[in-house]
Amino acid sequence: MKTKADRKKLSHVDEQGRVRMVDVSDKPRSVREATAVGEIRMSPAAVRAIRDGAVRKGDPLQTARVAGIMAAKRTADLIPLCHPLAVTSADVTLTARRWGYIISATVRTTGPTGVEMEALTAVSVAALTIYDMLKAIDRTMEIGAIRLTAKTGGRSGTFKRD
Amino acid sequence: MKTKADRKKLSHVDEQGRVRMVDVSDKPRSVREATAVGEIRMSPAAVRAIRDGAVRKGDPLQTARVAGIMAAKRTADLIPLCHPLAVTSADVTLTARRWGYIISATVRTTGPTGVEMEALTAVSVAALTIYDMLKAIDRTMEIGAIRLTAKTGGRSGTFKRD
Amino acid sequence: MKTKADRKKLSHVDEQGRVRMVDVSDKPRSVREATAVGEIRMSPAAVRAIRDGAVRKGDPLQTARVAGIMAAKRTADLIPLCHPLAVTSADVTLTARRWGYIISATVRTTGPTGVEMEALTAVSVAALTIYDMLKAIDRTMEIGAIRLTAKTGGRSGTFKRD
Amino acid sequence: MKTKADRKKLSHVDEQGRVRMVDVSDKPRSVREATAVGEIRMSPAAVRAIRDGAVRKGDPLQTARVAGIMAAKRTADLIPLCHPLAVTSADVTLTARRWGYIISATVRTTGPTGVEMEALTAVSVAALTIYDMLKAIDRTMEIGAIRLTAKTGGRSGTFKRD
Amino acid sequence: MKTKADRKKLSHVDEQGRVRMVDVSDKPRSVREATAVGEIRMSPAAVRAIRDGAVRKGDPLQTARVAGIMAAKRTADLIPLCHPLAVTSADVTLTARRWGYIISATVRTTGPTGVEMEALTAVSVAALTIYDMLKAIDRTMEIGAIRLTAKTGGRSGTFKRD
Amino acid sequence: MKTKADRKKLSHVDEQGRVRMVDVSDKPRSVREATAVGEIRMSPAAVRAIRDGAVRKGDPLQTARVAGIMAAKRTADLIPLCHPLAVTSADVTLTARRWGYIISATVRTTGPTGVEMEALTAVSVAALTIYDMLKAIDRTMEIGAIRLTAKTGGRSGTFKRD
Repeated sequence: MKTKADRKKLSHVDEQGRVRMVDVSDKPRSVREATAVGEIRMSPAAVRAIRDGAVRKGDPLQTARVAGIMAAKRTADLIPLCHPLAVTSADVTLTARRWGYIISATVRTTGPTGVEMEALTAVSVAALTIYDMLKAIDRTMEIGAIRLTAKTGGRSGTFKRD
Repeated sequence: MKTKADRKKLSHVDEQGRVRMVDVSDKPRSVREATAVGEIRMSPAAVRAIRDGAVRKGDPLQTARVAGIMAAKRTADLIPLCHPLAVTSADVTLTARRWGYIISATVRTTGPTGVEMEALTAVSVAALTIYDMLKAIDRTMEIGAIRLTAKTGGRSGTFKRD
Repeated sequence: MKTKADRKKLSHVDEQGRVRMVDVSDKPRSVREATAVGEIRMSPAAVRAIRDGAVRKGDPLQTARVAGIMAAKRTADLIPLCHPLAVTSADVTLTARRWGYIISATVRTTGPTGVEMEALTAVSVAALTIYDMLKAIDRTMEIGAIRLTAKTGGRSGTFKRD
Repeated sequence: MKTKADRKKLSHVDEQGRVRMVDVSDKPRSVREATAVGEIRMSPAAVRAIRDGAVRKGDPLQTARVAGIMAAKRTADLIPLCHPLAVTSADVTLTARRWGYIISATVRTTGPTGVEMEALTAVSVAALTIYDMLKAIDRTMEIGAIRLTAKTGGRSGTFKRD
Repeated sequence: MKTKADRKKLSHVDEQGRVRMVDVSDKPRSVREATAVGEIRMSPAAVRAIRDGAVRKGDPLQTARVAGIMAAKRTADLIPLCHPLAVTSADVTLTARRWGYIISATVRTTGPTGVEMEALTAVSVAALTIYDMLKAIDRTMEIGAIRLTAKTGGRSGTFKRD
Repeated sequence: MKTKADRKKLSHVDEQGRVRMVDVSDKPRSVREATAVGEIRMSPAAVRAIRDGAVRKGDPLQTARVAGIMAAKRTADLIPLCHPLAVTSADVTLTARRWGYIISATVRTTGPTGVEMEALTAVSVAALTIYDMLKAIDRTMEIGAIRLTAKTGGRSGTFKRD
């Protein structure tokens, strides 16, 4: 439910706020890297199924890595205002936990913009892939804590976070 | 670090667990619906920027809805073992909270398999789109609590969860 | 420039008008066909270059047909709220005129929705393909008169127009 | 049925008319910009529906902008001989007219070739998106007057047209 | 440079030889299956590298399976006149040989056309994926013997071959 | 059937060999070219159908060239660990033989990695396209002898082979 005050601001959005890609034509090309992490939490039975190789669709971990890397390359095709850039490196790692998996993705480029979105997309799609392969065993899995943890290169400098 | 026992099971995975799409050729076509939700948490400044229409790339909410719907249609292209099916309806809603937005997606089809993955992918890509449009204001946003909340149709029957 | 009255209505759009795919889950599957036409107008030199086979990139007519057919199949991936459906037939024809080419596309499906968008997209992409191949010769070409000329099947019945 | 003489000529076609991408390996990278325009003409009822926010699928203008920008990024995937390049900026504007909308798209890159096709594709797909969202109200809409209006950067210099 | 006579023949080509998708609107939907095989031949060093897990890009066999399955789903997007259909099952197997690998793919659907192209595309892309991952070790690999070995369902009946 | 010794090595793969894109961030951009060839063997009836222009779906040679060029541009989207790069030139040629066609593709780029995969993918998809268009006449066609024949540019220098 929106108040009258909100509405006034939102109509302002309609006139000023039409979508566009921010212009990066003049930004210098440099090596840029971003790391994002996230997690998928699942039932003990689902964790066990992965470890026992008992997942009907096959090994979810290898498949999730491949899916995450492919998604990193396709980020600008999914996120409307994201600039296309040539990924020069992409790496997805999955770390086993008692409650599921931590997913981490590191992406590099030498383009004019950063690769945060590529890293976050890789993590998200890797998590969705695990969900898909395990959903016959556990429908209550939860994907979460997806966030940027590091970013280097570019004008805005280095960003670090746990 | 894997123990010796784990390794033995994983090598078992290598022989039994090669990936494949589960065969759904004989499953009947019926109307199926799934709803997934998730959230994106952001700083007060980022929340304010959306409400004030001050986001440099344009209105994130409309864009996120479009991106989520388009992603639902492209799910089988992103998730390796997910069956392709013709989405007959897709709807993404964003509910404002003090700390950010709740994202919900409901997808329908009349195909032989469910649309959980389509709903979860729509939520994920809508959240990533908001992240992309706000990241100049807040790099510490977090996407989370992505989960299936309802599912109807198909042999496995109705599933409901908060 | 929008008047105050317009603005009031547009803010109404913000609350009622969020995008969604219209639900077609209950619509029956039937054979549906649509035909769209359009034209590309070009300089005499450009027309001559096509007829003489002197276009540097190769034969534009064959390439335009292939591009139009491929675009018809990818329509739901381009048009945000368009329902995906399996094209069962697509045909693009180019008719030479003194001033350029008339482009016509007929598409069929057996899905729950019509194929107007597929036919219109095929015409548009075929025209753009010709533009691309001829632009070194004539940059002032104009694509126009893209419209639906016939539609059969589905609840809304037959539509015909010149 | 072709005669023997035809057959010989067809092998000649194979040598002169076969398609290929023109080589741009040696062209310098520079900032290039192109602007294209087009229009969509519709019934007064359709114009009114947009302004009143009464379109069943949602706001067509925002959606058309998003679709146009996404299509600009995917141009080389649609137009067979078009060179892929990284779009650094894309902007789609819609100007209301009594009879419909004028659509304009400006695209920039720093690649070795121009972005005319990207701008023309953005205009075309934005127009198709409006058509899709309004077709339940008016099936006689017409998309037209799609043309390049400005181009800067690259060896061929500046091009300007109304 | 073409003579006047050629030009007349070319317009003839336009009428006989123009591409189109064959109409399958009236073909009944039934379960259809196709199996294709192929092989990739490589140096003893490359074979050893796969078996020893010494490939720098990771395990080629799992990745090739995933790539092949994903390509099966995208066949109609790659092969211009191929009908889109919803793959209901896809399976890629790799069998080790002294000289490399035999690749086999079995695809099923319940659509109106067969899945030969999907099976052949899965084999081809799986082979290309192995090539990509091994090319740092052996650039002389050869992909070959790609052929249809079995096909069931549809009007044309069962086809079998070694 | 795997021996015990193989299995031990493959489990080693599981721990060391997880997939990743090799990092090319620091590799210099230079003009790179690759040529790949392959062949499609078919029955005399199929060869005749192409030469007589009697193929029901249209001219397979032109369509195969277009499909091959488009596939070259989409290589990194198909091959999981392949680096995306902007193709600056792509050319597919088909040479008639008594037994079918030799397919050759030459691709160029100015990126940081080679274009072997793009050339090999262009050949493969061109061959698959011919198969698709002729399969109503001959289901026993065979695609083979796909290999890299030349490669220039980049650190690894020139490679040549018949």
